[in-house]
Amino acid sequence: MPESITLYTAKICPYAHRVELALEESKAEYTKYLIDLQNKPEWYAPKVNPASKVPAIAYGGPAVQPDQPSPESVKLAESLVLVEFVADLFPGSPLLPADPVKRAQARFFIEVVSSEHVPSWSNLLRTGTPEAVQAFLGGIEAIQSLLPAQGYALGEFSIADISVAPFLARAYVALENDIGAYEQGEATKILEALQQPRFARFQTYWAALQARPSFQATFDKEYVTEAFKKRLSAKQ
Amino acid sequence: MPESITLYTAKICPYAHRVELALEESKAEYTKYLIDLQNKPEWYAPKVNPASKVPAIAYGGPAVQPDQPSPESVKLAESLVLVEFVADLFPGSPLLPADPVKRAQARFFIEVVSSEHVPSWSNLLRTGTPEAVQAFLGGIEAIQSLLPAQGYALGEFSIADISVAPFLARAYVALENDIGAYEQGEATKILEALQQPRFARFQTYWAALQARPSFQATFDKEYVTEAFKKRLSAKQ
Ligand SMILES: N[C@@H](CCC(=O)N[C@@H](CS)C(=O)NCC(=O)O)C(=O)O
Ligand SMILES: N[C@@H](CCC(=O)N[C@@H](CS)C(=O)NCC(=O)O)C(=O)O
Repeated sequence: MPESITLYTAKICPYAHRVELALEESKAEYTKYLIDLQNKPEWYAPKVNPASKVPAIAYGGPAVQPDQPSPESVKLAESLVLVEFVADLFPGSPLLPADPVKRAQARFFIEVVSSEHVPSWSNLLRTGTPEAVQAFLGGIEAIQSLLPAQGYALGEFSIADISVAPFLARAYVALENDIGAYEQGEATKILEALQQPRFARFQTYWAALQARPSFQATFDKEYVTEAFKKRLSAKQ
Repeated sequence: MPESITLYTAKICPYAHRVELALEESKAEYTKYLIDLQNKPEWYAPKVNPASKVPAIAYGGPAVQPDQPSPESVKLAESLVLVEFVADLFPGSPLLPADPVKRAQARFFIEVVSSEHVPSWSNLLRTGTPEAVQAFLGGIEAIQSLLPAQGYALGEFSIADISVAPFLARAYVALENDIGAYEQGEATKILEALQQPRFARFQTYWAALQARPSFQATFDKEYVTEAFKKRLSAKQ
């Protein structure tokens, strides 16, 4: 029986979103505490995560308020570490299959998300060059190439899907609102490219991710849209 | 009972070395096939790893020669994925403790190795600037800061140690032989810095890693030294 879980998170953050999805899929009982990333509480870095980032989990220890973390709870950070942690705490959850080969395939998918999709999207947002557009579409193709004919990344839902859904969701928000360093109108072209037949399998996958109840329960699209408009438009 | 395992590896490669350590620690039966990275066999990319890198594992399928891989075996790649795969195949091995918190701590350590130590070392080799020297020593400090008072990264040996030992071993080979883009004599200074009291705990850790039988069974220091001299000195 797992001990108490407090998740420090922020709605805007795709990394933190991964952990919310993992907890949701595991039907875990947990306390969620929102960190305002523009105005982080003073106690957060010294008492929860020295890297001063979300997500982080305080695990176990005495019952306390989330804003008064106990030194006796274990503090853990890094989204992919936390997703595996939740899978270990709840072995009955759909997060990881029992078969070692399928587990390896899930982790390989995550590696591709981390090494290709995430950097290519952040580069697209920051630079918007034609090369960045191609690299972003290449990252989507890399994901698509790993998908089976139907269903999620492994067929059944797993941590592989959790690793990518929060980033895709935010990429779409940015593109649909023309947020990013590219020239105006460029985002529409990228969205159109993603509608082409060559991305057909990716589109059914993305639709399945969006339809997943855990995704709907954890993604506040309006909030993220407003926050992106404020934060990212300001940087241009 | 695991199926047949063929590991495609290369003595020079720190990533591949991780998987050899994992198999060794698990007392796994496996076939090792050395890939000459300077002259890779034609069948390797199409039949084993499309990324054309070591390490890779062919798992299961009919009994075949390693240089005639069967399409029926499962092909897996990426060193950290493979180390977790070996841990999943051999749950009785010392690779991962059963406690979810300790597993998370092992994976957090690996994350620090991947995001700090590995890039800072490769940058040191390539550029040798004073900033790169400081970043390399900073990476060693980051590792040291995670170590308990005694023993390995988690106290007991685990995949955390496996993630870092092959890189440290090669960093020492490079420094001891003045291989890298820094000015001559600079490597000696870095080695001296690592002997200072501020790195005392790191030094006992590094000594423990080197003394581990699985390390001694898998690290061919002379071979790596000669290969580094040939490959890396040539690039300068
Ligand atoms: N590698 C970390 C990245 C987490 C991260 O970068 N979080 C961001 C928000 S998305 C953060 O908290 N940044 C600190 C800040 O905004 O002050 C993970 O996977 O958890
Ligand atoms: N991310 C990969 C990296 C593997 C890698 O870069 N391997 C190198 C050798 S150390 C390789 O095979 N490179 C291809 C080549 O040299 O042709 C892993 O963790 O396994």
